[in-house]
Amino acid sequence: MILCVTLNAALDVTYSVDEVRWHAGNRVAAVAQRAGGKGVNVARVLHTLGEDVLVTGLVGGDTGAQIRADVQAAGLAEAFQDVTGESRRTVAVVDAAAGDATGFWEPGPPVAPDDWARFLDRYDGLLTGARAVVLTGSLPPGLSPEVYADLVHRARKAGVPVVLDADAEALAVGVSAEPDIVKPNVDELRRATGFTDRLPGAEALRAQGARAVVVSAGPDGLIASTPDGRWAARPQDRVSGNPTGAGDASVAALVRGLVADTSWPERLADAVALSASAVLRPLAGDVDLAAYRRFRDTVSIEEI
Amino acid sequence: MILCVTLNAALDVTYSVDEVRWHAGNRVAAVAQRAGGKGVNVARVLHTLGEDVLVTGLVGGDTGAQIRADVQAAGLAEAFQDVTGESRRTVAVVDAAAGDATGFWEPGPPVAPDDWARFLDRYDGLLTGARAVVLTGSLPPGLSPEVYADLVHRARKAGVPVVLDADAEALAVGVSAEPDIVKPNVDELRRATGFTDRLPGAEALRAQGARAVVVSAGPDGLIASTPDGRWAARPQDRVSGNPTGAGDASVAALVRGLVADTSWPERLADAVALSASAVLRPLAGDVDLAAYRRFRDTVSIEEI
Repeated sequence: MILCVTLNAALDVTYSVDEVRWHAGNRVAAVAQRAGGKGVNVARVLHTLGEDVLVTGLVGGDTGAQIRADVQAAGLAEAFQDVTGESRRTVAVVDAAAGDATGFWEPGPPVAPDDWARFLDRYDGLLTGARAVVLTGSLPPGLSPEVYADLVHRARKAGVPVVLDADAEALAVGVSAEPDIVKPNVDELRRATGFTDRLPGAEALRAQGARAVVVSAGPDGLIASTPDGRWAARPQDRVSGNPTGAGDASVAALVRGLVADTSWPERLADAVALSASAVLRPLAGDVDLAAYRRFRDTVSIEEI
Repeated sequence: MILCVTLNAALDVTYSVDEVRWHAGNRVAAVAQRAGGKGVNVARVLHTLGEDVLVTGLVGGDTGAQIRADVQAAGLAEAFQDVTGESRRTVAVVDAAAGDATGFWEPGPPVAPDDWARFLDRYDGLLTGARAVVLTGSLPPGLSPEVYADLVHRARKAGVPVVLDADAEALAVGVSAEPDIVKPNVDELRRATGFTDRLPGAEALRAQGARAVVVSAGPDGLIASTPDGRWAARPQDRVSGNPTGAGDASVAALVRGLVADTSWPERLADAVALSASAVLRPLAGDVDLAAYRRFRDTVSIEEI
């Protein structure tokens, strides 16, 4: 099983509004809600691809119960740790007239030391059955930026390979524990390393400990710096749609390739195609499998 | 006791954001939540003024339980009817940099005929102990715009005077049942009557059945058309702050005057002063009592 960790799981709420009037009041035409957080999205994609997944992380309160119920309803196995406090919501306001969305992300519940200790015990137990672990997304308040480094370290000690997708200090500290793959986007890379160029930024993260670094740049595709070489992978066509969750789809492809031990060019082609197929679907965590297979053969891979 | 009816009770959530980036993602710095809906706000103001109030209306699901708990925590007596479905939330995004807010109002739960029948039984029972009833706010989906007319009719049959604060068709139909006072703002008046001018619009609502009509126009104060005469009431100074809940404060003053049988000039001066004192407080339902007493003597009242 692939273990997908979402420390700051969320109930993702979508408000459909015909035409948003900023600085005024708006009647919401329709409300939809779904369990989210990047690890949940990665698990949904892996499950759609037929992989055996287990979702864990921290949930609390009524909102936590709703997250858990929705993860189960999606057919995903879960072993969330209950914490004191209320899980966060995110609200995405989709503006039909403007054709885009504005997101608001609550910070999440403060995590008490006792709850964290209980999660660590659970995590160590779950590693026993894991072929790989995915650590992804923001940290709830009260957790130090060092927790991802600790989780990487524990996985490595248990002989389980790790994909880390984090931001800022959590990424900068996390790489020191030598995760197998890290997957920042260009903004996350800049915040963690100071580099705006992808290849020097990726090399910097490798120098700090990451075994392989894959940097995503939306429609420009991926670049990878790995022990086996360096590549750029680009989609043939620009797809339009909802880019939320595209990065999570590429993480799903990378961890799947890691577990199956495919070559880097194969993994990257998969990651670009799966990411583009996620853009076609309105909800993060969903992918268009037919489009994925179509895109798969048209990705250009180039050594750099 | 004064019975305050909120058919579409809400959990009002406030997101504080340092500087909102529209069409992008925003981290929320702080989340606050409170029971809301216009009837709850009116009840809070009446309670602050020392009046005996009872809150009723429809609530459902986890959000309904949170609304109920918060109303109780505020010291308000409540007799909400539980309904199937989940009560709505409203989200107000307060933008510190812009110094204003953008609101998103969920529609509320669809109300099944059985739940509505149970509410009507409860309402009829509560009327027995009521000195006045306040009917205010939007209707949840599934309720016909005629329900306020029915609730007015039942109150009148029980000998209980009614203040109605509604919008659009619910207001237009509601006045036909001859409520004692209706309190539209200028937009609601226009939607119900087609009139943009306040006095002709107020006269139109009286011709349709309302005994007295008070039209609010924010910092321009109130005009009233009543069986005893017509008045304009204006605050001396413009106050700046949060206008949400100012209309509810004026409704609280009007129902209080109705119960105490004060003269119309007194009621209007109270309504203008209490409304301005609500603008000074950041949360709807709160009033600044010291400011209210100060403003009270400076309101200008003029026969028109």
